[in-house]
Amino acid sequence: MDPTAEHAACFEAGVKFGSLYHQFAGTPVSPTSALSLAQAMEAAIENQPHCRSVSVSIREEALAADLDDEYGYTELTGRHFEAEVVVEADGVEAVARMAMDGDYPLMRLESVDAS
Amino acid sequence: MDPTAEHAACFEAGVKFGSLYHQFAGTPVSPTSALSLAQAMEAAIENQPHCRSVSVSIREEALAADLDDEYGYTELTGRHFEAEVVVEADGVEAVARMAMDGDYPLMRLESVDAS
Amino acid sequence: MDPTAEHAACFEAGVKFGSLYHQFAGTPVSPTSALSLAQAMEAAIENQPHCRSVSVSIREEALAADLDDEYGYTELTGRHFEAEVVVEADGVEAVARMAMDGDYPLMRLESVDAS
Amino acid sequence: MDPTAEHAACFEAGVKFGSLYHQFAGTPVSPTSALSLAQAMEAAIENQPHCRSVSVSIREEALAADLDDEYGYTELTGRHFEAEVVVEADGVEAVARMAMDGDYPLMRLESVDAS
Repeated sequence: MDPTAEHAACFEAGVKFGSLYHQFAGTPVSPTSALSLAQAMEAAIENQPHCRSVSVSIREEALAADLDDEYGYTELTGRHFEAEVVVEADGVEAVARMAMDGDYPLMRLESVDAS
Repeated sequence: MDPTAEHAACFEAGVKFGSLYHQFAGTPVSPTSALSLAQAMEAAIENQPHCRSVSVSIREEALAADLDDEYGYTELTGRHFEAEVVVEADGVEAVARMAMDGDYPLMRLESVDAS
Repeated sequence: MDPTAEHAACFEAGVKFGSLYHQFAGTPVSPTSALSLAQAMEAAIENQPHCRSVSVSIREEALAADLDDEYGYTELTGRHFEAEVVVEADGVEAVARMAMDGDYPLMRLESVDAS
Repeated sequence: MDPTAEHAACFEAGVKFGSLYHQFAGTPVSPTSALSLAQAMEAAIENQPHCRSVSVSIREEALAADLDDEYGYTELTGRHFEAEVVVEADGVEAVARMAMDGDYPLMRLESVDAS
């Protein structure tokens, strides 16, 4: 069937998450640079259509555990941050979140509501 | 409200599209390398959970128009390809497509159905 | 022949530039998000081995000219910023710069000196 | 001092390596998709100025060891491939290679010669 406004909002939430992840995965990151990266990730993805807010928080212990012994940094991957995205499209708000599910950074739709 | 299976399938379709776009945007591309890139994009994103198929087709005229005069290549952007993604999750199939909407490469959900 | 310390420093400068460009090309960017992106780019690449400093400055007019009329953002490409990288390795300092050469964002080695 | 032709060739080799790595790091990859990705990486970077050849070979055991148990894929990182880049600029050929140095994928300049 043709997508409804709810379907479209859920799709948009997914686009934001896939963008957030694959634009920035692989970025060199360390405890001192992580905050600026998180802020840039939020501001970048908030530019996308229908995106109301993006929150990225660094998982500091996981990041510390992955630092290269000699060089003091690693490459950003889903173990190193959690994120929440809120989109609004055609009167529907969709909220999605990425958090660790065991060893896998799982992106999950949290809620779909009239906005 | 809590997301339904339909909502989740739409979200997954969006994740695949955002991933496809932002992993590969910026890749050096020319008429001779475009096919291998399209194939790698398809195979890469088909690895993701719930992804049944990905089709990427190069827009050859748009690519040719963007080639640098001196170096003969450009960087991949949404003007240079169209894509279709089919996901299936929890008995629901969602189909999404990216195509040009004027100058903007618009990602759009096409259909949501029982699979 | 085997590379000298000068050769190695020049190689390292190139690695930083290629990393800077291809990690961040394609990032959604607008006048309001550009500064946070530039700062994150600097801090990220400064993590890499032998990298002493990275400076990224947004070319605001070029960015403004590329904004999508409807959505108010574009995707980062070499037209939108200039950058300078300083590396130091084995007693040699190499400085490289990216600036527009006509329509092409040209990365160029500027100087190689004892540090 | 001003860079020589040798310096410039070494810089170019570095640019290719940084580009190769940071364009493709984070790409979803599995044993079945790895070959198409390696081929696309080679063809993409060979587009860049002064690049004579790029060879990417997948480290199959390292890739197999990193696959997610449930989903059967992982994200490309330097543990999963080796690469060689040959550039030629202004009569100088520079060869660079990436291989594991312990746990760190080290990019190293191999040789610099008249071409």
